Formats: sequence, C-alpha cells, structure tokens
Amino acid sequence: MANIAKKVSWSGRGEDRGERTPLLNGAEDGKYNRKLSGGGMFHIGRLSTVDLEEEITPEEEIVRSRLKEIPHNEKLLSLKFESLDYDNSENQLFLEEERRMSHMGFRCLEIRRWVICGLIGFFTGLIACVIDIAVEVLAGYKYFLVKQNIEKFTEHGGLSISLILWAVLNSAFVMVGAIAVAFIEPIAGGSGIPQIKCYLNGVKIPRVVRLKTLVVKVFGVICSVAGGLAVGKEGPMIHSGAVVAAGVSQGRSTSLKKDFKMFEYFRRDTEKRDFVSAGAAAGVSAAFGAPVGGVLFSLEEGASFWNQMLTWRIFFASMVSSFTLNFFLSIYNKKPGELSSPGLINFGRFDSDTVKYTLFEIPLFIIIGALGGLLGALFNLLNNWLTIFRIRYVHRPCLQVMEAMLVAAVTATVSFAMIYFSNDCQPLGQDHSEEYPLQLFCADGEYNAMATTFFNTPERSVRSLFHNPPGTYNPVTLGVFTLAYFLLAVWTYGLAVSAGVFIPSLLIGAAWGRLFGILLSVIAPNQSMWADPGKYALMGAAAQLGGIVRMTLSLTVILVEATGNVTYGFPIMLVLMTAKIVGDYFVEGLYDLHIKLQSVPFLHWEAPATSHWLTAREVMSSAVTCFNRVEKVGTIVDVLSNTSTNHNGFPVVTHTTGHDEPGKICGLILRSQLIVLLKHKVFVERASSRLIQRKLQLKDFRDAYPRFPPIQSIHVSQDERECMMDLTEFMNPTPYTVPQETSLPRVFKLFRALGLRHLVVVDNENRVMGLVTRKDLARYHMGKDGLEELHLAQM
Amino acid sequence: MANIAKKVSWSGRGEDRGERTPLLNGAEDGKYNRKLSGGGMFHIGRLSTVDLEEEITPEEEIVRSRLKEIPHNEKLLSLKFESLDYDNSENQLFLEEERRMSHMGFRCLEIRRWVICGLIGFFTGLIACVIDIAVEVLAGYKYFLVKQNIEKFTEHGGLSISLILWAVLNSAFVMVGAIAVAFIEPIAGGSGIPQIKCYLNGVKIPRVVRLKTLVVKVFGVICSVAGGLAVGKEGPMIHSGAVVAAGVSQGRSTSLKKDFKMFEYFRRDTEKRDFVSAGAAAGVSAAFGAPVGGVLFSLEEGASFWNQMLTWRIFFASMVSSFTLNFFLSIYNKKPGELSSPGLINFGRFDSDTVKYTLFEIPLFIIIGALGGLLGALFNLLNNWLTIFRIRYVHRPCLQVMEAMLVAAVTATVSFAMIYFSNDCQPLGQDHSEEYPLQLFCADGEYNAMATTFFNTPERSVRSLFHNPPGTYNPVTLGVFTLAYFLLAVWTYGLAVSAGVFIPSLLIGAAWGRLFGILLSVIAPNQSMWADPGKYALMGAAAQLGGIVRMTLSLTVILVEATGNVTYGFPIMLVLMTAKIVGDYFVEGLYDLHIKLQSVPFLHWEAPATSHWLTAREVMSSAVTCFNRVEKVGTIVDVLSNTSTNHNGFPVVTHTTGHDEPGKICGLILRSQLIVLLKHKVFVERASSRLIQRKLQLKDFRDAYPRFPPIQSIHVSQDERECMMDLTEFMNPTPYTVPQETSLPRVFKLFRALGLRHLVVVDNENRVMGLVTRKDLARYHMGKDGLEELHLAQM
Repeated sequence: MANIAKKVSWSGRGEDRGERTPLLNGAEDGKYNRKLSGGGMFHIGRLSTVDLEEEITPEEEIVRSRLKEIPHNEKLLSLKFESLDYDNSENQLFLEEERRMSHMGFRCLEIRRWVICGLIGFFTGLIACVIDIAVEVLAGYKYFLVKQNIEKFTEHGGLSISLILWAVLNSAFVMVGAIAVAFIEPIAGGSGIPQIKCYLNGVKIPRVVRLKTLVVKVFGVICSVAGGLAVGKEGPMIHSGAVVAAGVSQGRSTSLKKDFKMFEYFRRDTEKRDFVSAGAAAGVSAAFGAPVGGVLFSLEEGASFWNQMLTWRIFFASMVSSFTLNFFLSIYNKKPGELSSPGLINFGRFDSDTVKYTLFEIPLFIIIGALGGLLGALFNLLNNWLTIFRIRYVHRPCLQVMEAMLVAAVTATVSFAMIYFSNDCQPLGQDHSEEYPLQLFCADGEYNAMATTFFNTPERSVRSLFHNPPGTYNPVTLGVFTLAYFLLAVWTYGLAVSAGVFIPSLLIGAAWGRLFGILLSVIAPNQSMWADPGKYALMGAAAQLGGIVRMTLSLTVILVEATGNVTYGFPIMLVLMTAKIVGDYFVEGLYDLHIKLQSVPFLHWEAPATSHWLTAREVMSSAVTCFNRVEKVGTIVDVLSNTSTNHNGFPVVTHTTGHDEPGKICGLILRSQLIVLLKHKVFVERASSRLIQRKLQLKDFRDAYPRFPPIQSIHVSQDERECMMDLTEFMNPTPYTVPQETSLPRVFKLFRALGLRHLVVVDNENRVMGLVTRKDLARYHMGKDGLEELHLAQM
Repeated sequence: MANIAKKVSWSGRGEDRGERTPLLNGAEDGKYNRKLSGGGMFHIGRLSTVDLEEEITPEEEIVRSRLKEIPHNEKLLSLKFESLDYDNSENQLFLEEERRMSHMGFRCLEIRRWVICGLIGFFTGLIACVIDIAVEVLAGYKYFLVKQNIEKFTEHGGLSISLILWAVLNSAFVMVGAIAVAFIEPIAGGSGIPQIKCYLNGVKIPRVVRLKTLVVKVFGVICSVAGGLAVGKEGPMIHSGAVVAAGVSQGRSTSLKKDFKMFEYFRRDTEKRDFVSAGAAAGVSAAFGAPVGGVLFSLEEGASFWNQMLTWRIFFASMVSSFTLNFFLSIYNKKPGELSSPGLINFGRFDSDTVKYTLFEIPLFIIIGALGGLLGALFNLLNNWLTIFRIRYVHRPCLQVMEAMLVAAVTATVSFAMIYFSNDCQPLGQDHSEEYPLQLFCADGEYNAMATTFFNTPERSVRSLFHNPPGTYNPVTLGVFTLAYFLLAVWTYGLAVSAGVFIPSLLIGAAWGRLFGILLSVIAPNQSMWADPGKYALMGAAAQLGGIVRMTLSLTVILVEATGNVTYGFPIMLVLMTAKIVGDYFVEGLYDLHIKLQSVPFLHWEAPATSHWLTAREVMSSAVTCFNRVEKVGTIVDVLSNTSTNHNGFPVVTHTTGHDEPGKICGLILRSQLIVLLKHKVFVERASSRLIQRKLQLKDFRDAYPRFPPIQSIHVSQDERECMMDLTEFMNPTPYTVPQETSLPRVFKLFRALGLRHLVVVDNENRVMGLVTRKDLARYHMGKDGLEELHLAQM
C-alpha cells in the first residue's frame, strides 16, 4: 500500500492546500496573550507560508520540497494535524435549537440517522461490487491473453516474449493507477487504514474523506490488483466506506459544489465521526463478508466510548453493505436472489464435517503464532526502513510512478521465473477448480502447480492453499514461493498505488502454514489428525496477518466470518494472540509504524502507566491566548491572523482589573466560530441593524462546515476593527476544566473518553492557567526504558 | 427465573444485612451541612433501622415485612442502592504507590490481570461443566424412570399413576432448589442477568457476587432444570461467571474467611468491575459456546467506554471458558481432546450445503420478526403483571417454595396431557436422534411426536425443532404446544428458583417458527425454497427471544455462534431488529422491566434527548455536607452516624471565613475512606506516635474492601472526638467538577463515560454548590409524553 504517496500528502501538499489552519494553541504570543506562570514548553519552527489558491504556486513548490527534506523521525510529533471536535459546543444557539425541538423532532433525527446508515451501507456495497467486477473482468482478460501467449510459445520456444507481454501488461495497469494516485490525489495511496484509524482517533487528516479521494482510490485499486501487484482490494474498501459515510451524512459534496439541503443537522464533527465509523465498518463488511467483524473493527480502532444505539446503527450499515454486495454479485453471477455468498474475499467454506482439532494441536498453533509474530515483525521492520528511504529519496510523483511500474514488472518476472523453473506438475482436478491452469512443460492432463499461486489473483491463491487436497503442493515450491512473495509484498506496501496488505499477508502465511502442515505429516506420517494441511494454511495466514497488523478481536471475528466457520475461532484467537505478543516484543504493527512516521499525534487507549508523576501543570501549554466576553474586533482579527501561533480554541474569560492577572474562565470559543462571526459581522455596534437583518443561527455555522474560510479571506475595515464582539451567545459556556494538580492519566482519561480537543486547566479560583490539547498528551509515550517525551515540530 | 426472590432480596434483606451504608448524598441535614442556595428536591422517607449482626433479628423481620408492604411502583426510584466507584480516588497514597512502581511493576500487574482472566475462564467453564453433567445425569435418570413407568402402565392402563410419579419427581427437584433460593440466598433466584446488568452499570446490588450466591445458584439451576420447569441453564451461567470473577480477582473469600494474599492491587471497584465483565462474558461463552457473543454481551450491557486491552482480556476469559467446558465435556463424552463441540447449549450445526436463503424470503423474515416482537411484548406484559402480583402477595419464602412446586406439578401435568391427547405418531428415525422416544399408544416402530418436545429437556427440544426433517411435526401439535409452553414460561419466570429465560423463549419461538414454515409450504407447496421448516424455526426462535430480552448485536452473534453458521447472520439480524422495534413500541425488555420494578437507579446510554433545558443547577442535590481539610473527629463521626442522610461522598473544602458561605472545593473523600481513617485513629494529635507506628498505607484500605465496617462498630472516645483529622493525604485532590450552567446531557455524558459516583457542581469561584449522584441523573427518563421525573423513595 502506497504510504510513500500518503507521506508526501500528509507532510507536504496536504497542509498547504485546502486546510490552512494549523491547530494547536499554546505557543507564546507577545501581544494578546495573558502571560501566565510557567513557560511555553516547545520550540516553534518556521511555519510554512500559506496561500489561498488551490493551484500550487512556485513558492509552494519550494516549500514542499523543503518540507520533504526534513528528515522524518519517529521521535517527533507534528503540530500540523488538526483535531476533530468530538465534544459538542453547547452554546446558547445550540441549546435554544435543542429546546425548541420536540420529542417527535428527536425521533425524526434518529430515523434520519438510520436512513443515512442504510445509504452508507448501500453505496459502500455498490462500490465493492464495482471494484470486484472490474478487477475480475480486467484480470480475466489479462490472464487470458498471457495464457494464450504462453501456450503458443511453449510449443514454439521463445517464452521470453510471453514474459515481456506479461510484464508490459502489468506495468501498464499499474502505471495508470499510480499516475492517478501520485499526481491527482496522493492521500488515496496505500490501504487508507492508517488514515482512517487517525480520523477515528480524532485527528483530521486533510482531504481524507473527499469525493476525489474516493474516485482515485477506487480507480487505483482496480488498476493495482489487475496489474498483478502483491496487493489486495480489501484494505481500500475500508477507506472507501469512510468517504461514502462522510459524504452521505453531510447531504452535500463540496467537490461537486452540490448541496442537497439534507441532513443539515449532522454537519458537525461529532456526528460526522460517528457516521465515518459506520462507513469503515461497512467497508470491512463488504470486503470480508464480515458484518460483525466490521463493527468490531470500528470499535477497536475508533470508538472512545461505546454507545448502544450507535453500535446498532453501525451494525445495520455493515449488514446492508454486505447484503447489497451479495445481491448485486448474485445478479452478476447469474444466480439472482441467492444471497448466501460472502463478501469481496472468498476463502471458500470449510466443511463442518472435516473441521476439527484436538488438544494436542494447540502447542502447534502456538508455534505457528510465534512464527507469524516473528515474520510479521521482520516484515514491518523491512518495510519501515524502506518507507524511510522512500520519504527521503522517492518523493517526486514521477519517481513514484516509475517505482510502481518497476515493481509491477519485477513481480511479473519473478512469477514467470518461478513458474518456469518449477517442475511441480499436478494432475488436473475433475472439478476444474483451477481458473487458469497452465500446462507449460507438464504432461497433458497435468498443470503447473506453481502457476496456481502465481498465475492468479492473490485471493484465489489463498483459497487454493486453504482448500486444495493434500499433495497438491510440493514443499520446495511453497518454500520458494513464501520467500519470493514475502519480499515482493514488503517492497509493494508503500508504493504510490492504492492497495491493501491483508491479502498478501494472508497469502504468505497460508503458504508457509501449508508448508508447516506438510512437514508435520512428513515427521509423523501416522497421525491422521494433521491430514489436512489446509487447516495449517489457515492458521499460518492468521498468524502472518496478525503479526503484521496486530489487530486482535476484530481480526479473529473477520477471519471466522470470512471462512464461514466458528469452530476454528479458538485456535485463530490463540494464534493471533501469540503473534501479537511475539511481534510487539520487536516492533509495532505496520499501521502504527506508518502513523508514527507521519508524526501524527495519535492518542492511545490509556496514558503510559508510569506517568502518574506528571500533572496537568507540567503537561499543559501555558500562556494561553484568551478573549474577553466582549472583545475588540481588531484584537480577534490580529490573533487569528497570527500565523506563528495559529491557535484554534480560545478560553473566554471574565474581565479582570489587573491586566497581568489571568481571567476567570467563563467559556471556550473556536477559531471556526469566530471566523463565521467575523464573516457575518456580528458586532455589538451593529446590533440595532442586526435586528432588522435576521439573527445568526446555527445554520450559518453548519453551512460553513467543514471548510471554514481562512481569516485572510475576510475583509475587516479599519472602522470595524474598532467595533466590539459579544461572544457570550456563541461560546461554549461550560467547557470541561481540570485543576492543575490532576495527574496525566486522569487528564488523559477525561480527554480520551469525551473526545475533547481542548481541556482548560484552571487554578483554585477558576483562572485559566493553561490548555491541554492532543499534542500535549500524545507527546508522552512508553519507550523501551520507560516514559519518553517526543519533540514537537511544526512540519 | 425467580424475580420474586430477587425482589425480596433487593428491597428487604439485601439492604439490612451486610451492606449497611445507603449511598446518596443530598438530603438536608441541619447540623453539619453548609446550607447552599437551591432547596433539596425530594422528600425523605423513614429510613429502616440498621443493625450489625448477620442474623435476622426480630426487629429486622418487622422492618422486612414493612418494606414488603410498600407497593412497588415503576415511577419510583429507590435510594437504597449504592453505586460503585469506577472512578479511582487518586489521593496522595495512591499516587505515591504508583510513582514508586517501576515499568516492570506495571508489566507484572498486567500479566497478573491476564492470569486472573484465565482463571476466571477456567472456573466458569468448570462450573458450566458441572451443571451440564449434573443436569444430564439427573434428568436422564428421571426420564428413564418415568418412561419405564409409562410403558408399564400403557399396557395395563392406569397412566394416572405415571402422571403422579412424574409430577412428584418434578416437584421434588424443584422444591429442593426453591428452598435453597428462598431461604438461603434469594438473590440467587432468577437468571441473574438483570442483577449483573445493574452491577456492570455501576449499581452495587447487595450480595450479588458472593460465594454463597454462587453455590445456591449452581445448585438451584441444576434442580430447576432437572425438575422439568420451562427454564434454561444458560442465564444463570452469566451470573455464575460474574461471581467467579469477583471472587478470583480479589484473591480471597470473605465468606470463607480466607485471604490468599494475592491480587491485592485489584481490591477496588474499578478493577473488580472490569473483571466482573470478563466473568459475565465467560459465562455467556460457556453457556452458548459463543466467545465473541460473550464479549459483545459484556460490552453491550456494561462497558461505558471501550478499552482495547480490557476487551482483549475479556475475550481471553471467554475463550478459556469455552475451551475448558469443551475439554471436560469431551472427556465426559469419552472423546478426550476433541474440542470442536460448542457450549452448554447445543443447537446442532446447520449444514453449510443446505443453508441458504433468497431475496424473496426477506419479507417473511420481517413478518416473523414482527410476530416475535408482538409475542415478546405480550410475554413481558403478562410477566410484569404477575411480578407485581408476586411482590404484593407472594413474598414469604414458604409461599414461594409452594408456588414453585405447584408450577412444577402443573408443568408435568400439562406435558402429560399434551402427550396423552396427541395422536401424532411418527416413525422412529434410523439415527435414533430421539433420546427418550415414547411409544405410548403409537404403533410399534413409531413414537409420539409431542413427546419429543415435552418429554425432554428444553435444549433437546429446540434442537429437534431446528433439525428434524420436514413432516416430523403435526401443525396442530405445534400450535397447541406453543400456547401451552408460552403460558408456562410466563408463569415460571419470576419463581423463586434460579433459572434462565433464554431456552424457553427459543423453544416457544422455534415451535411457532416451524409452524410458520409448515404453513408456508401448505400455502405455496411448489416452492422449493421453504422446503426446510428448520430455517423458520431458527428465525422464530430468534424473533421470540429478541422480542423478550431485546438484546441486539450480542444476541445476533450468540445465535450465529451457537448455530455454528454465519450465513444466517443477516436474516437473524433483520429478525432481531424488527422484533426490537415492534416490541419497544409496546413495552420494554423483560430485564429492563424487572430492573424498573426494583426501582434501581439505572443509567442508560444517553440522557433523554429533550433534557437540554435542564442544567446541573436543577439536577444537583444541593445542601452538601462538606468537610474541612482538617476536620474535627467528632464532626466526622456525627455526620457518618447520621442515619437520616447517609451520605457517601463528601467534598473537602478550604476553610472559609464566613460560616454561611460555601467553601472552595479542594478534594473529595468517601465514607469508606473516613471509616478506615477512624478505625486506625489517624488523628493529627497522634501524628508523633504514628511516626513510631507504621504510616497508613493503601493496603489498609484494600484490606477493608469491600465490606467496610459500619460507623457504629468503631469506638471513638470523648477525648478522641476533640482530635482533628487531616484529610489532605487521603482525599481525592482532583475530583471532577462542572459549573452550574452545564446542561443535563453534558453532565450525563461526563458521569457515564467516566463511571462516576459523585460529581461536584461548583460556581464561578469554585465553591461547592451541589453534588450530582446517580439517582439525580436516573430520575429523568423519557416517558410516552416526553420527559418524566421519577420520585425518590427511601425503600
């Protein structure tokens, strides 16, 4: 998955285009800050200049290249990511609206939420269907061409021409996909799971849920899977579902400049994030035919607290998505109305009668799990190094496209060589379960076994490894295949193509798992219990995937649902757990590594255990920019325009007599709210004329959401600068506060459980002493030798 | 399930024995309260006198009988239930301990948590195994006896003797179980699910997690299932798992007076509650062979926020429990090591090949769901009336035992009559799937079909309904059976026996579901798709159970896991959702009804939607009893001894000059902490001598947990009353606070997300204005016509 593309996007273009308001409050600012005790704790780097046009100006190009040169470092925490406001700003406007609403009104809202979830599920299923059919058609056509060609040249000699044809076809597909990703929408690269994980965690990743991203993602994944890369189409479905959710729930598309005037109530971060979790779940559900797994994925990755109704809605979206996919695929497969087929992935069903395991196999499963953990850690380490290399040297879009094409050609070459040099001939089965049996140099009525794994889409290969009868594969074939595919997969993840890592991981694991099973039957040939190497292939697949992504409960359920068999639940869990424990000993999961490389301020579930000695006083950013209840417009404009601070939330304080003394907290107002107020010129002096105009309503804030205009685009005349603004009605009058002595874990718990963006730290007298934001908490993490503190960087 | 027993326990004996500290702070108290603005909002009833002996004194007996006479009312909220302290009291002692702990120390703790979860799973599985084997042996013996007897008298005439034998055997079993429940431990009655739901919600139900309860529960459920009541053994497993968890995690048994000196760190409500969720999950897992369903059950019912590590541990406990049960049952079934059998319940596997459904069946599933919702609502309404009747008139233990015996005899009689009058003879199957085929008046080689459903444990009947081939059952038989069993089940739930409602619900549903399927094939005989009435039996079972208990996600997963088939996931979800929507229109779920009848202050997921106009000022209990940082011992003792207030948490304030002015908050201290301080005489005046003694440590608090002695048992001399106590070190210095203007939903969210017990409401100056506790929030609920306010009652 193309994290190199994501990289560029996250650190370079992402910030400069579109989202232009870096988030964090806390830097010192001479003019308007009320100086408080305790100094600012972090250095401020130069901030890149921001501009307003969507086009990339030459200056921006320079900034971008400079940004790219900053060496990425896991010990840095970027300040450029905004947070989502999961906490509702309960200002007077909001409360008035809620109080006006009747019991029926809330019922209607609830019904609308269900409708949206149904729509999310429907469209996600539809997209999965489109991807599936497109891949099948394209890949089918490609393999048909190459197979014909190979058959032609096997007899006449000159198979190198077939190789070239294959490589060129692959590269062509991948080139198209990579160009779309690298030049049009870099954030669409990779699986998108790290980005969605961040979004659900409360970090706003620029452009991650836009329509353009979705289009490029879908197009890209079709190209990369059809192009024969060692990738899967499942990961991107999760991202696609999330984009669908963000779009549908808002009832409009800013990209298409189309507002359906629907679902306006849901235009805020709180609601949107809930819907995005439903979308991600629907994506998983469509990808793996695993509705429950989807719900668990969303909860495991996203929800900071569990709400029964929300969960039930998420489940509904998942179910609808899986149903839609099944329904349309059943039509495509000419069996309309037969809904029993699973999701995008099709592992085949394990037959209930043969599915069993005994107590004595449990140690074997644990060994497989440990192996998976080791191999997964190796995968992650190698890929981590490669990613750092890419960030440093392969950051131009054209280089990225070329690398992707190179990988595609190499994949074809390696596959070809493996097939060519293998002499593992197997008799053709009666049931023609092989889609493209390659005879090559085998006798008539036989086919090349290596070709079943290489000359095929990875999903089909996994299925063969799970279900083919014992004796189908030669152990040497499997060993060589594992090694080759492992290296290919490491190289592929992080390319500028949109693609997932689930399927390649499963394939690698299935290969060595089956090998393991075969070796077992060689060592102890008289034991009937390991007669079926497919069981070990399944366990190996689970172990390898678990070792790479380190998901736990949700992965167990996804695998159980995808294989349609509950009996293997316990061994799969054992294997996943062992893989996670062993893998975590060496290195983090793949997604977490990539999130770390982006220096995203990601909040884990709990504060580091040994952080009890830290209190809010040490953690907070002090010297907070505060506003008075009634504040001068000029002051507000100056604060908002100050690019060196770029605060996003401002405590509102009661006027104090002494100017040096911090004021008492009486509210909290956001940059976005102030911008809307300035835009509508809600000044005290104009109150009389405003009575003639209509009063500002929540609708005005919702219309501006989520792309609030930058302060520079709002013209404030010199006269207006002298006016006053009354913030009382618009601020959140009851922000959460904590005293300075609160321990870090306690602050963390409050922050995480409520999904906060700003937490005001007050003293005994309720005076504002500091502000805790996401980066203040994400900074502390558990290193090898105890608590470590990350540095903050403005990049 | 015997909610009548629970009733007595919850409202009468529960409070008077053992737990003696009613919880709620907020009543006015002339002497020690600092009077604040805003009046107390609720009347205070007489408080029952409390005494210290475990034995029931004559006075207590009077109190109990008086309490029972109070008519129960759904519009009341009882003040007698305590809350759990899910929020940690982060006082200096705790912080010092945490700071002293190394990185390794925390790792060890984590490992210990895993070990405990493993043990919980193991013991829960073992208990499930004991129950299963005991029931099988006893029921087998009973049916063997009766069968012999029937066969004997079928030929000779005089079957009434067989009926009497059957009824007497049933009554005897039930009597033994009912006596244990009614006389020894009433809280062990019923399924225990409402109690565990309350516990996980944060309500302390007296004696619910004690060893004695577990013993009575296990013994009771064996008796009631063997006694042929319309009950299942699954519900009680959840309660059993929870008790095991509470016991194991504390490393001691207060009942057995045995302290293993293990796991002392976990002796507080926060940790205990986490383990209890694991225990409940392990119980579900063992009962239904559904480890994932168990996790979801715990989360759906209990967790206010989702913690990844906790979830993973819960999952581990579930898996171990299911594994243990499987392992021991495999030994019992003489197939040691074969672990593929499911949990206690055995629905049989649906064969993957025959499992399918088409689009056209979906409307049928929705109809089934709606039927289930209707029938479920009817069940709940009837049972609700019956429960109110029982609370009023059947509250003496001997009456309860007699009622249970009567039900057992009637069940036998009805069953006998149904079998006797049915002439639905079916040929004996080749595979002898019938455990006790009754020939009765059928021809040789045939058996009475009615007997398969009545002359059997309910689980086996469900299995027959799911899997027997088409044509096994006569539609009239099924119709009569449904009606009879429905009424029996309504009557049985709430008896003073320990038993679950899952299996009877499934059985009723499976019967009418199969009937539905048979009718379909009569109406449209040419359609092959509803050839299998077993599918409709499954859907009917899901619909009926969903209509009664109204569980959602977890129930879907439980049913999917229990039937071992993923394909029916979508229809099952559809059915459950329809059943819930239809059922909720009429009446709440069975468990919620019973919780409401107990007037438990249960917190739902969110505040009522239309409650935004309420603020903390209106919601809070004002006139809070506060202490000074350094407080006179006499004052503390008097406040704690005041039975008319019985506060449980006290804000600690800085000394103010004016006596009428409320003090500034600087901490919060709990009754339990004060009791320990008083017991150890931690007085300022003794500080010098305390230096010689050891300093008070967290261990002292943990040793006293959870049964802190009542204040009356602590002797404080007149001299000591004049001493001072310094609370600084022991109070929680950073309690959560909110301003008075905070809206109810916001207060609710904070309270619920963090699992609080006390939330201090402060003014601008951080002065204590009020205290919000559970009952203040639970009071508001959504009625038919909008927001309703429950009355508070001291019973």
